Amino acid sequence: MILIMTMCLSIPAGIFFYNLNSVESKEYLQPIYLSLGLSMIAFFLTYKMIPIFMELNYAKKIFGVDINKCEDIKNLADPDRREVPESLGIVPATVFLVVSIISQAIITLSNERKLEFNAGLLSICFMIFLGFADDVLDLRWRYKLVLPTIASVPLILAYSGSTSIIIPDFISSFLGGHKEIELGIFFLIYMSLLAVFCTNSINIYAGINGLEVGQSIIIGISILAFNLIEIFSGNEQGFFPLVIVMPFVFTSLALFWFNHFPAKCFIGDTYCYFAGMTFACTGILGHFSKTLLLFFIPQILNFLISLPQVRIF
Amino acid sequence: MILIMTMCLSIPAGIFFYNLNSVESKEYLQPIYLSLGLSMIAFFLTYKMIPIFMELNYAKKIFGVDINKCEDIKNLADPDRREVPESLGIVPATVFLVVSIISQAIITLSNERKLEFNAGLLSICFMIFLGFADDVLDLRWRYKLVLPTIASVPLILAYSGSTSIIIPDFISSFLGGHKEIELGIFFLIYMSLLAVFCTNSINIYAGINGLEVGQSIIIGISILAFNLIEIFSGNEQGFFPLVIVMPFVFTSLALFWFNHFPAKCFIGDTYCYFAGMTFACTGILGHFSKTLLLFFIPQILNFLISLPQVRIF
Repeated sequence: MILIMTMCLSIPAGIFFYNLNSVESKEYLQPIYLSLGLSMIAFFLTYKMIPIFMELNYAKKIFGVDINKCEDIKNLADPDRREVPESLGIVPATVFLVVSIISQAIITLSNERKLEFNAGLLSICFMIFLGFADDVLDLRWRYKLVLPTIASVPLILAYSGSTSIIIPDFISSFLGGHKEIELGIFFLIYMSLLAVFCTNSINIYAGINGLEVGQSIIIGISILAFNLIEIFSGNEQGFFPLVIVMPFVFTSLALFWFNHFPAKCFIGDTYCYFAGMTFACTGILGHFSKTLLLFFIPQILNFLISLPQVRIF
Repeated sequence: MILIMTMCLSIPAGIFFYNLNSVESKEYLQPIYLSLGLSMIAFFLTYKMIPIFMELNYAKKIFGVDINKCEDIKNLADPDRREVPESLGIVPATVFLVVSIISQAIITLSNERKLEFNAGLLSICFMIFLGFADDVLDLRWRYKLVLPTIASVPLILAYSGSTSIIIPDFISSFLGGHKEIELGIFFLIYMSLLAVFCTNSINIYAGINGLEVGQSIIIGISILAFNLIEIFSGNEQGFFPLVIVMPFVFTSLALFWFNHFPAKCFIGDTYCYFAGMTFACTGILGHFSKTLLLFFIPQILNFLISLPQVRIF
């Protein structure tokens, strides 16, 4: 497992160091290093604080029973108890927020970028709060659909990119040769739905130790690699998602350390909402919301397979 | 009690309607009406949702025992139980966030204002999350001092006002005739401390039914009145805090309905942190952070009286 993780990490690292000398926009290197340093601090902070909060949550009876553990394996994990502390997603989420806020103070951003950054963090923070409330209070389903939609509003209001899509050639001939379609408000609605989809599609994978965090790390690393390539091909757009997704990947790795099979803790809805909104955020603010869906192909498949279970059908 | 509330509300209302026709900057009237309308919706939403969450919190064993109720009075409130559901502050806090986010979509703001608005909401949202986590998990004291400081960072980074203070004449003669002192970074530190002070000074009033919410409503109405006067004297600076503090006062009133003696619910740290950060936010972003302390005089007195209890002394 650690081998796979190392391999996954080595890909963007390889791209990064290979292009280090050939990079045109050297000005982005320093902030990237800063962000990397902060992310590493975030990793250790998360790693140190998860055991403390595991005890806190356990003491407050926030735990779940791990039904995946049969008797033999149970003994490997923890001989005394089958209850596993729940909702540990608050630790990486809080550390992520703290590090992002601090990085905002260190890295100089233009006012427009600052607006996007704050709007993005507001959306993420609202989702974390909602996720934790959900873990503690078991909210009803309707809140889970309404509140992410509202949480995505600041994100969408801060969105300054284009709202048109480019049509592939073979389709454009049917549409009278239009190469680009302006979607306007519908594109904004699409982005809002994307936020709801991202948060919930990660959540429905719950049930297998480490799967939720594992998939999030893989998606996170994909976004990382994609944006590094963007930067090194001279597209400065890629810098911004990097600052958000880097601490996310590192804090998630620390959580994965405790959550992989046999799980010492559960992550709760807190983490799922946090991860989903972070992805939606990077996708929307980095202006690659359509590319983002490519990273979500397994989740889309799972979503389609799970559709018949939804009660309204 | 309701009489006092009505009187308190009638003061800003009186100022408002008296100046309605004489106002120079008519352009602010429409957003103020919009904000007032949204705040009223927020009031009803909070009022309707608190009983739902009272049951939810009670079912999840988030409750406190009201030691203020003697046997006779207890029967008036609820004959069956002395346990009162805790941490109901999440309802007004969530409604406040939702309404603020929506009002951001309706009211047109300049990009700079948007940045301040989002930064302010991020700080408030982070504090709400922290407060709720504190209610559920009983965080240690050190977190309660460190995290509000970090939560105030986006607020301070978005601050665009002056960082100098004006010296009264009788002191300035001692300082070689300087009328204004540039504090620079120290002013930013002062604002950060203000945020920590506001959040904790409301919290230490806990213990008497309705006192925390009551004082917050009074401070909120003071801020409301102050900023209405500012607007009507042609200072557009006052508009922005108004949009934040109006939904706050209305959601707090709904909470007060359930929290006043004999309390049907407790508000938890969630509400205290939420209220404190909202005040700090309006004070800092409305550029009246020094005037704000005047509204906090009873809290400052209480803080000074409580100082000997702090363990480090």
